[in-house]
Amino acid sequence: MQFEAWEGFVPGKWCNDEVDVRDFIQRNYTPYEGDDSFLAPATEATKKLWAQVMELSKEERARGGVYDADTKIVSTVNSHEAGYLNKDLEKIVGIQTDEPFKRSLQPFGGIKMAEQALEAYGYHIDPEVKEIFTKYRKTHNDGVFDAYTPEMRKARTAHILTGLPDTYGRGRIVGDYRRIALYGVDYLMKKKQEDKDNMIGDMTPDKVRDREEVAEQIKALQALKGMAAKYGYDISKPATNAQEAIQFLYFGYLAAVKDQNGAAMSIGRNSTFLDIYIERDLKKGVITEQEAQELMDHFVMKLRIVKFMRIPSYNELFSGDPTWVTESIGGMGVDGRTLVTKNSFRVLHTLVNLGPAPEPNLTVLWSKRLPDNFKKFCARISIATSAIQYESDDLMRPEMGDDYCIACCVSCMRVGKDMQFFGARANLAKCLLYALNGGKDELTKDKVTGKPLQVAPEFVPVYTDENTPLDYEEVLHKYDVMMDWLANLYVQTLNLIHYMHDKYSYEAIEMALHDTKVRRFFATGIAGLSCAVDSLSAIKYAKVYPIRDENGLITDFRIEGEYPQYGNNDDRVDSIAVWLVKSFMKKVRSNFTYRESIPTMSILTITSNVVYGKKTGNTPDGRRAGQPLAPGANPMHGRDHSGALASLESVAKLPYEYSRDGISNTFSITPSSLGKAD
Amino acid sequence: MQFEAWEGFVPGKWCNDEVDVRDFIQRNYTPYEGDDSFLAPATEATKKLWAQVMELSKEERARGGVYDADTKIVSTVNSHEAGYLNKDLEKIVGIQTDEPFKRSLQPFGGIKMAEQALEAYGYHIDPEVKEIFTKYRKTHNDGVFDAYTPEMRKARTAHILTGLPDTYGRGRIVGDYRRIALYGVDYLMKKKQEDKDNMIGDMTPDKVRDREEVAEQIKALQALKGMAAKYGYDISKPATNAQEAIQFLYFGYLAAVKDQNGAAMSIGRNSTFLDIYIERDLKKGVITEQEAQELMDHFVMKLRIVKFMRIPSYNELFSGDPTWVTESIGGMGVDGRTLVTKNSFRVLHTLVNLGPAPEPNLTVLWSKRLPDNFKKFCARISIATSAIQYESDDLMRPEMGDDYCIACCVSCMRVGKDMQFFGARANLAKCLLYALNGGKDELTKDKVTGKPLQVAPEFVPVYTDENTPLDYEEVLHKYDVMMDWLANLYVQTLNLIHYMHDKYSYEAIEMALHDTKVRRFFATGIAGLSCAVDSLSAIKYAKVYPIRDENGLITDFRIEGEYPQYGNNDDRVDSIAVWLVKSFMKKVRSNFTYRESIPTMSILTITSNVVYGKKTGNTPDGRRAGQPLAPGANPMHGRDHSGALASLESVAKLPYEYSRDGISNTFSITPSSLGKAD
Repeated sequence: MQFEAWEGFVPGKWCNDEVDVRDFIQRNYTPYEGDDSFLAPATEATKKLWAQVMELSKEERARGGVYDADTKIVSTVNSHEAGYLNKDLEKIVGIQTDEPFKRSLQPFGGIKMAEQALEAYGYHIDPEVKEIFTKYRKTHNDGVFDAYTPEMRKARTAHILTGLPDTYGRGRIVGDYRRIALYGVDYLMKKKQEDKDNMIGDMTPDKVRDREEVAEQIKALQALKGMAAKYGYDISKPATNAQEAIQFLYFGYLAAVKDQNGAAMSIGRNSTFLDIYIERDLKKGVITEQEAQELMDHFVMKLRIVKFMRIPSYNELFSGDPTWVTESIGGMGVDGRTLVTKNSFRVLHTLVNLGPAPEPNLTVLWSKRLPDNFKKFCARISIATSAIQYESDDLMRPEMGDDYCIACCVSCMRVGKDMQFFGARANLAKCLLYALNGGKDELTKDKVTGKPLQVAPEFVPVYTDENTPLDYEEVLHKYDVMMDWLANLYVQTLNLIHYMHDKYSYEAIEMALHDTKVRRFFATGIAGLSCAVDSLSAIKYAKVYPIRDENGLITDFRIEGEYPQYGNNDDRVDSIAVWLVKSFMKKVRSNFTYRESIPTMSILTITSNVVYGKKTGNTPDGRRAGQPLAPGANPMHGRDHSGALASLESVAKLPYEYSRDGISNTFSITPSSLGKAD
Repeated sequence: MQFEAWEGFVPGKWCNDEVDVRDFIQRNYTPYEGDDSFLAPATEATKKLWAQVMELSKEERARGGVYDADTKIVSTVNSHEAGYLNKDLEKIVGIQTDEPFKRSLQPFGGIKMAEQALEAYGYHIDPEVKEIFTKYRKTHNDGVFDAYTPEMRKARTAHILTGLPDTYGRGRIVGDYRRIALYGVDYLMKKKQEDKDNMIGDMTPDKVRDREEVAEQIKALQALKGMAAKYGYDISKPATNAQEAIQFLYFGYLAAVKDQNGAAMSIGRNSTFLDIYIERDLKKGVITEQEAQELMDHFVMKLRIVKFMRIPSYNELFSGDPTWVTESIGGMGVDGRTLVTKNSFRVLHTLVNLGPAPEPNLTVLWSKRLPDNFKKFCARISIATSAIQYESDDLMRPEMGDDYCIACCVSCMRVGKDMQFFGARANLAKCLLYALNGGKDELTKDKVTGKPLQVAPEFVPVYTDENTPLDYEEVLHKYDVMMDWLANLYVQTLNLIHYMHDKYSYEAIEMALHDTKVRRFFATGIAGLSCAVDSLSAIKYAKVYPIRDENGLITDFRIEGEYPQYGNNDDRVDSIAVWLVKSFMKKVRSNFTYRESIPTMSILTITSNVVYGKKTGNTPDGRRAGQPLAPGANPMHGRDHSGALASLESVAKLPYEYSRDGISNTFSITPSSLGKAD
């Protein structure tokens, strides 16, 4: 074995001059099928620290949502001195700035956003920093707006494309933070240098960019060592015990959130990996279960206090201030063994020891074959805390293997092997209105003429008069043409955004913790699925008469008769939903995508559907302008009147292979509906 | 006519919503075949100003070569407040900083170089600027060194590739500064915006880069207007008279040298263009010849005091501190009219009014058909000042038309339509030694092993013992293989450099004064031609025995017998020179070049041949290690013993179509050799 730190581990490919964390896990982890009786309560130190966090949270609210904010030090991996909650009590150290709850200054994604966020809470950016990031250091946001076409800007203004990652970090990239614990940073740097040395041949722009990126990755790893050193840790070599394993891994994640302020900064799939270290320490007798739980509690506590400086409209869009520190838990191995370990219990048990919290976003990879004891435990914690997310491991494992994780809420990626270019959403309900109105926006006015803004090209609108119902075939054809336009514009807009993000805000530390030859997903997303589908159904099965405003624009509808609605397991309309998902994804796929990335699509608005609805006019399904669209792939509110199962059946028809970035269904149910109470 | 400023001009395509300066010139210029008797002497104002410049120059020398240097304000187009020599006397205003002779701080090409240059003269860079350009704003130089391969670095260390533009601005890009005078900046911005609006379709990295570049160009034009405004000029509209035309044009050039510190910052082909404005004013009677000459004198004076902050080794390489403000003069039009105007005389007459000076590098485009009076005038000024460069218009015109200019000393480009990626030089004499020694450098040691540095791959060396002469065919074959390697490495190194220059030090203001769809040349260059050729000739026609050092490396040669030497019009050896030029260029062409640029080659070391020679070991032609190589395409010093004509005939055999970036021949001759004295 190359390192003493590996003593007691079963060797294999992972230690044969390869970075292969999955191989290490498979050879060394201990599946656990027992119950939760081994779990330990919070220690005194944990309670004290958590009380301190609660106190700070209270004070943060009292101060209007921001406790303190850095206005001067530009956040980078190694920008700040060490900071602590309570140095004597913390087993896992490291915070984003030099003081807990003090939000960091992250201008690389966009200086305007950084400044506005500060101003919104009464802080003022240091004028020197502003000058640097205006005169000398261009930001991602400035690059994007330099290159945007007028059409892209209009689509953005009219909100047919929404939430584009063009003003701050794109996020959704998950470093394999476990590598730091298993290999130490020096070895990772050595392997990166080898990769760089093998990037030879014609120095095309792509090759030069790749070489420079790896150089930046190596520098980021160096900075990571420097940051850890400030906390008294030498992470150049592998972690020697459980505490170090958690600490080293967390340093990696901390570096990521110091470097990037993406909307979703997920952490990966770490619990079972860490269990190996804990098991080794437990067997050696150098740690007790109490101490193991304390380590996990302190680790999770740190993940709970990750914060970014956001503008109020951001918080409005997301109904809060989420960080999406998603940790993926459990699941089954491709060899049939469960990946649930004692530490899968411990990480969920933090919800008991620290109380419920939305972050980290603890996500159980659910399989029918998970151990019964774990299933029961999850159910119990869910009932008690409502703080667990579930995703179907059985659906994802065949494609992704057994070492993938979830980024944000539903995007799955193999840890350290896949990354994603996050792509926000296109509004398909609004697109249908564009099809009717020849590309004019139903709500947004042209600033110069005061007339409805022409966003799409001037396609022929629907000329149907107010006494004639809309013709389904005509509308469908025009919708198809309009979606061709929208898919193309959407993908080209994202191509431009991701080029600029790589240029001005490259995620060096996160990518340093990926394989150099990484698989890239080009994520797109759709909003307003059920609204668009019901609208088409209404036009097909009922009679929908257009109502025009003074500009001749169709801005309302008169509906005669009933129509089948999505969410009732009725194939007449559910087939339209399947068609729509497939059609749009095919159109997306037909376009050039940046860096040979693989196009994917999600149907996953969870809260932003409210804001998207605000920007969408009256729709042919009877929904009024401004009313929310349904979240994700949900039926429109109140229309799934055939019971829960029928509603779920409708959603389940959506083809996952055309929506590989995930489909979300927000589903509330009263406990009594499921049977006897606990 | 769109603008009042165009009153009196013959209209044409140039004013029909097209930027076309050549069309304007062709329709409006007045060829002049008369003599120089119309010229006016320096005015009192000119004399006073020039005395002031002389005084400052003296003080500059007294201060060790640098009068003053900016250590804090980063030079950009609009970075400084207005500065003057003498505001009341100057007819053409504008200097690089706020004080004459104060050198500007230009870190975008490389912060280390900027700092070292200051340190060398006792100045210290502002620590804040250093921090900004280290932590936040990456420079071209840092980008290049991040991406260099170990092989590239070794080739650079061993000086087989020399003078690569990787530490400061690459230069050699000539904006069409005339456009500012003719069209005004607002119109140029409008046309650029139109160009950007037409860059649609797939947002490939190339397309996004192009869009962003045009956005930067527009911002640079805006900054240019701001800079001119500080001097009290509104350059948003076209120039209305000769003074404004010269002033507006100069502001454009000034912006370029504030933005970029390239080795060669040439100004284009302006005299005949300006003559049109002067003629109009003379005809209107609003200007006298005296005043016209004064404008040109003041303009040229400004060009003479352009300065950059350089490191001493740079000055050593170039035997001084050249700026290569090349102004191309005269030539013939493709319609047969001469492009010589009165103003061609005036610009050369500045050498009389202000006295001789190497800058601006006044370059006459020579044709057999130039007017006799102009030829005689040139000859007289040359004899008096030794300050005119001549280039063959007859050679260049067929390829380049009649609106090209010279960048640096010999690189021709169509003004505003072509640009060049400057590429320094590969040392072909050293390459021959690599062929003999299997890629090991004859002078440079590996820092780790202390053995000769293996720069090229470990090709089979020549095994000939010391008693056997080198075999010509074997050497030729190995040289061919080694040149394949060198040409490839050279081109890939330049690909990388130019990618980074575009990324970190893009010439926004210069490119704003080019057509958006520009033709790009990928310039390469060779050094040591005659030394390599004579070495091959020696091996072929005499007997050359290798002498090896303790490492077995061939480090010296014993030559038996005579061999034909290049420079004597002897086809036996001149044919080797032709073969070598063609071979290397073909190898260069076989490689991928950045941005679809067209590979070209130059043979033009003028002073740097001395430094290249210092880094080249003993050669088979008998030249000793460290001795200079010959400049450009010159025969080796003293070997052209068959007279001047034979020497020139040898050089003239080199095929221009394989060396399109220019061939230089440094040739001194005593006046008496040419016949009767003046």
